[in-house]
Amino acid sequence: MATDYQQRMIRAQKEMADQKVDILLLSSGADLPYLTGYEATPMERLTMLVLPAQGEPTLVIPQLEAPRVKDGPFRIRAWQEAEDAVGLVAKMVNQGSRRIGVGDQLWSVFMVGLQQQLPGSLFTSATAVTRPLRIRKDAYEIAALREAAAATDRVVLRLRDEPFSGRTEQEMARLIAALTVEEGHDQATFWIVASGPNGASPHHEPGGRMMERGDLVVVDFGGKIRRYGSDCTRTFSIGPPTQQQTEVHAAVLAAQQAATAAVRPGVMAESIDSIARTVITEAGYGEYFIHRTGHGIGLDGHEHPYLVEGNSETLEPGMCFSIEPGIYLPGRFGVRIEDIVTVTSDGVEVLNQADRSLIVVG
Amino acid sequence: MATDYQQRMIRAQKEMADQKVDILLLSSGADLPYLTGYEATPMERLTMLVLPAQGEPTLVIPQLEAPRVKDGPFRIRAWQEAEDAVGLVAKMVNQGSRRIGVGDQLWSVFMVGLQQQLPGSLFTSATAVTRPLRIRKDAYEIAALREAAAATDRVVLRLRDEPFSGRTEQEMARLIAALTVEEGHDQATFWIVASGPNGASPHHEPGGRMMERGDLVVVDFGGKIRRYGSDCTRTFSIGPPTQQQTEVHAAVLAAQQAATAAVRPGVMAESIDSIARTVITEAGYGEYFIHRTGHGIGLDGHEHPYLVEGNSETLEPGMCFSIEPGIYLPGRFGVRIEDIVTVTSDGVEVLNQADRSLIVVG
Repeated sequence: MATDYQQRMIRAQKEMADQKVDILLLSSGADLPYLTGYEATPMERLTMLVLPAQGEPTLVIPQLEAPRVKDGPFRIRAWQEAEDAVGLVAKMVNQGSRRIGVGDQLWSVFMVGLQQQLPGSLFTSATAVTRPLRIRKDAYEIAALREAAAATDRVVLRLRDEPFSGRTEQEMARLIAALTVEEGHDQATFWIVASGPNGASPHHEPGGRMMERGDLVVVDFGGKIRRYGSDCTRTFSIGPPTQQQTEVHAAVLAAQQAATAAVRPGVMAESIDSIARTVITEAGYGEYFIHRTGHGIGLDGHEHPYLVEGNSETLEPGMCFSIEPGIYLPGRFGVRIEDIVTVTSDGVEVLNQADRSLIVVG
Repeated sequence: MATDYQQRMIRAQKEMADQKVDILLLSSGADLPYLTGYEATPMERLTMLVLPAQGEPTLVIPQLEAPRVKDGPFRIRAWQEAEDAVGLVAKMVNQGSRRIGVGDQLWSVFMVGLQQQLPGSLFTSATAVTRPLRIRKDAYEIAALREAAAATDRVVLRLRDEPFSGRTEQEMARLIAALTVEEGHDQATFWIVASGPNGASPHHEPGGRMMERGDLVVVDFGGKIRRYGSDCTRTFSIGPPTQQQTEVHAAVLAAQQAATAAVRPGVMAESIDSIARTVITEAGYGEYFIHRTGHGIGLDGHEHPYLVEGNSETLEPGMCFSIEPGIYLPGRFGVRIEDIVTVTSDGVEVLNQADRSLIVVG
């Protein structure tokens, strides 16, 4: 099943008319590959889709990147190294446009340049236009996310048989990155290994700490398959866990399961967060659950919807996101459990199946 | 030798006074680690150094990232998931500031939000302030770049003994990524393997093409050591090269050597580009050298100075950049040779030493 980029472009233009956006300017970030199939590396050379509310889009691209572009529903304007690419785009915009939607991940150096050349224009976020398109995944996208989740499940299975004790976090992180690719991802994108007291830092960068018996180890990793992401967290215990480690893990698991069970169309995103938080608070660890419950996933590793207090948008079929409560005890240890789920017509499909228990390893 | 972040912060504030910038806002990109030692992952949660021209800087950071920050010459303001981080920064800025310098790689979603809350302010590029600091590397920085370059040289040496024929570009790319780490990088950051006709695409993404006898293969790769980058390109020939392949390679090598020999303080950046281009043009391949001759390297993989037509800034001791001319024949093959060099007090030090000849492999 191929993606119909022409169709997506038409939907984007319809949304632009509704949102009264005159022109979209998309560069690095997932909006561009969503609409064109082409992904721009974030860099100092500007690649930019110039999409007017009516008429043909143009992909402005450095000449040396042009050979990488496959044909699509857009013109190509390749620019030479000594050309002023920002000036080129400004000229295209200047034909009467006023309300400009810029992609969220566009580098500000380009926005500063565009604003200097387009002093009368209003710059807004392109996400008002692209979010309604991207937030509900189609069958092709869900299939890619399902495949990526299954690949992470196989990595978890293999980690059960690996020795943790006597290895550094960094060594384990390299192994996980390699397994992520071996099990079917096109690339590994991140690999958190946070052992012992380091587990209390949710985004700990794996370092030289030697793991040892008695440690809990938070392992959070993912990759990309056909550009769609995976993101899975499991917590391992090196040797038998203490009573408190068991209790904290049980609280996180109960929160994760309660939140997952509550997912269905019509529920507010913040309600899922609140359900997970209530379980952890009632277990006495509320102040140690220091992040939101989840984030959308797709072409971007983090995207809408966010399961966070204050986000009252309602869940709809096809939305895909993580559910990942955690408890972080400073100086001691951390626990997190994370699955990717998708909202179905009447409930939830959990894409990850790997064992969620406190996995005892050597 | 440790980096003196306090000293760098003072120099930045002095530069701000000279440039009449009231406040710097630094997020993702290399300006932040240059001044603080802390690197922010580009993401939807805002991390931002708020540096006024006078007074104490504040690092605004998501609560869950705060445990990763080491002490430095700044206050920390950790924000909770449901807080409005952009509003928080806007309030700090609002105390009389007007000219704001934003880091070049700041995501536009944050700049759009800041502009909505600070309608009277002028947004400019922070690079006016940070470029004069970052462009001349100190001894510690050059040592890291030298070490990284030497690690890529060792990878090139090992590649000579590897079979190319019968492997796909992707397989070779994975091997190169692994060797990049094995030879001492903290991480591999990119790995271009462009074989046969794919070599005509300078930034070709390694794919499933099986390499075979008769191919030229452009290999361009690098990684990071202590956050400083390497970037090395060599061209391999699977079996003996044809006369044209030999001739094109000789033209690129001559261009690369002439450009390198011309590097010394006081020469304009664009002159180095012009020298390389002249050699290739005189060999009859001018229209196939479709990119600039080089880019600065340091904490960012691409940074100032750029060796490109139109850049009349003069080279100074401590500047570090790539010299990487290439010839790209559509549908046939490509050749590129790239070293990292640093400007010395009276000439140039070439950091890469690996064999620059057309390396014949099996």
